Amino acid sequence: MTHITDARYSAFRGQPVLITGGLGFLGSNLAIALTEAGAHVTLVDCMLPEHGANPFNIAPIRDRVAVTYSDVRDANVMNYLVRDQAYIFHLAGQVDHVLSMTDPYPDIDINIRGTATLMEAIKHHNPGARVIYTGTRGEYGEAVSLPVGEDAATFPKGLMEISNLTAEKIIEMYDHVHHIRSILLRLTNVYGPRGQMHHSRYGVVNWFVRLAVDGGTLKVFGDGKIKRDFLYVDDCVHAMLQAALCDAAYGEVFNVATGIPVDFVELADTLISATGSGAWEFAPFTPERAAQEPGDFWANIDKITRIIGWTPSTSLREGLTRTAQFYRQHKTYYWT
Amino acid sequence: MTHITDARYSAFRGQPVLITGGLGFLGSNLAIALTEAGAHVTLVDCMLPEHGANPFNIAPIRDRVAVTYSDVRDANVMNYLVRDQAYIFHLAGQVDHVLSMTDPYPDIDINIRGTATLMEAIKHHNPGARVIYTGTRGEYGEAVSLPVGEDAATFPKGLMEISNLTAEKIIEMYDHVHHIRSILLRLTNVYGPRGQMHHSRYGVVNWFVRLAVDGGTLKVFGDGKIKRDFLYVDDCVHAMLQAALCDAAYGEVFNVATGIPVDFVELADTLISATGSGAWEFAPFTPERAAQEPGDFWANIDKITRIIGWTPSTSLREGLTRTAQFYRQHKTYYWT
Repeated sequence: MTHITDARYSAFRGQPVLITGGLGFLGSNLAIALTEAGAHVTLVDCMLPEHGANPFNIAPIRDRVAVTYSDVRDANVMNYLVRDQAYIFHLAGQVDHVLSMTDPYPDIDINIRGTATLMEAIKHHNPGARVIYTGTRGEYGEAVSLPVGEDAATFPKGLMEISNLTAEKIIEMYDHVHHIRSILLRLTNVYGPRGQMHHSRYGVVNWFVRLAVDGGTLKVFGDGKIKRDFLYVDDCVHAMLQAALCDAAYGEVFNVATGIPVDFVELADTLISATGSGAWEFAPFTPERAAQEPGDFWANIDKITRIIGWTPSTSLREGLTRTAQFYRQHKTYYWT
Repeated sequence: MTHITDARYSAFRGQPVLITGGLGFLGSNLAIALTEAGAHVTLVDCMLPEHGANPFNIAPIRDRVAVTYSDVRDANVMNYLVRDQAYIFHLAGQVDHVLSMTDPYPDIDINIRGTATLMEAIKHHNPGARVIYTGTRGEYGEAVSLPVGEDAATFPKGLMEISNLTAEKIIEMYDHVHHIRSILLRLTNVYGPRGQMHHSRYGVVNWFVRLAVDGGTLKVFGDGKIKRDFLYVDDCVHAMLQAALCDAAYGEVFNVATGIPVDFVELADTLISATGSGAWEFAPFTPERAAQEPGDFWANIDKITRIIGWTPSTSLREGLTRTAQFYRQHKTYYWT
């Protein structure tokens, strides 16, 4: 995160904030922003293998945050950790949709049971906490019409996406029935510094950045005309922060995206141009990817703009340039 | 079930059929119908405490069905049991929405993880099986407009209902991605013989029947004007059977209901008149029931009528009369 000394975030000063998945991609970028805004941040991470948790992610704030290696499925620990927190950003999760096609149990156990465990802890030990949850645009499945608004039907195409939708429904129920205030964010394809860079099973943009930085060849599946909505992580962090501080956002679900469709050919071209290295080529889909491939997706972001006042401000070229710079500088901590 | 020697069901003759939750309310009524139609039925039940499993439920077919005391969460057992089955009716579940308000884990474990375990077993060991799942109208939550059609938004108000919706999404995903053919049924308030009659936490109509049969006093919550859609179990069984045999039904979700709104005062009056015993009085909602109370509900059943050709044929009075007769004759097996 570039330095946030933004006056909009002064309300976080001195506030206790818990972030689950705090050493991961979104969690660490959020933690840096919150710490710079003066919040007292506690990071929870269970260091899930093959996921994004990386101690280097929090290097800029290492001495200013509390880190606990805990699992959201651990009820005793969650019962303790949620106490006295003003805001709880629940970002922990199994996010590998390829894994979820062969083994559905981690999604159920971590994403569903873990969310229920956290919400039970909040219900019993800190019902005044404000909860911000990050789900995925994958909850919609195939877009019936574009751009996709929050009231579109949800037909998730994998267990990971189903488990995110279920986590949302659980949090929503605790809001309605137990009056625990919460915001549900559905993120599009987010990319940027501090992602997991070890494998290509999720986070395609960051994977492309790795290949480009290393001077490799990106594989663009199919005809490269599938359109996605690529969001730079700093913009995503701003959305989370602004949502949390917006009273009218509680009880609502919001798309967090650019609203701008970009196809994979444009992505690859822009990246290679911005990075100054790498090349790309077409490649066929694997059968499992093809079956899960939800086609074109871009989001309608009118709701978050209207209610929260957030809009993304980083162009694709700018975001890719910054991402490549970060990994070029720090790649020893990410894949070598 | 009254005897089904209906020619419509001759296609079940000689067919191997698995029913999870087979000793319960719906499962046993379905098993009797299928056995009378000549199917080779295997019943799976884990005898979940406080639920509907009751050996007496299958007394009419005890020597003609296979019974296994197994849990859908047991992957090894499911991997074995699903082999060679032509139809798998997945009815097993935690169905106590009052329990689900204080303990979310049984819903997640049994209804979500159990369904995933069953579907994984089918995927690996019998992908040609046809799956029929029974969810609940509670998946819709509060009705935005009445009657409620299958394309209405889903805002379930408790973990039990959320877990049913998640089970649906899981089965739907196995259909779309792994081509396992399935039908999703959303049942309204079903009543009739072979229900669980020990407590009033779910199955309000059957609970009312117990009280009436015993000459007790029914408590009608609130002002008694809340409307529901009460379906007699035989009609529900016909819907399951007809759906299973209808090729066009696979891949679809259907309401199974009467489409006729009846308020609780009318229900109580009709029951006491049909039974010839009991009385009723008003009572206030408990706070937890009030928080979960989704208000008026009745379903639009145009879709199941159009595609499957099913319509309910039992009037409320007729259904209540038969239900009361059954329990008057057999109450020793249900609550004494």
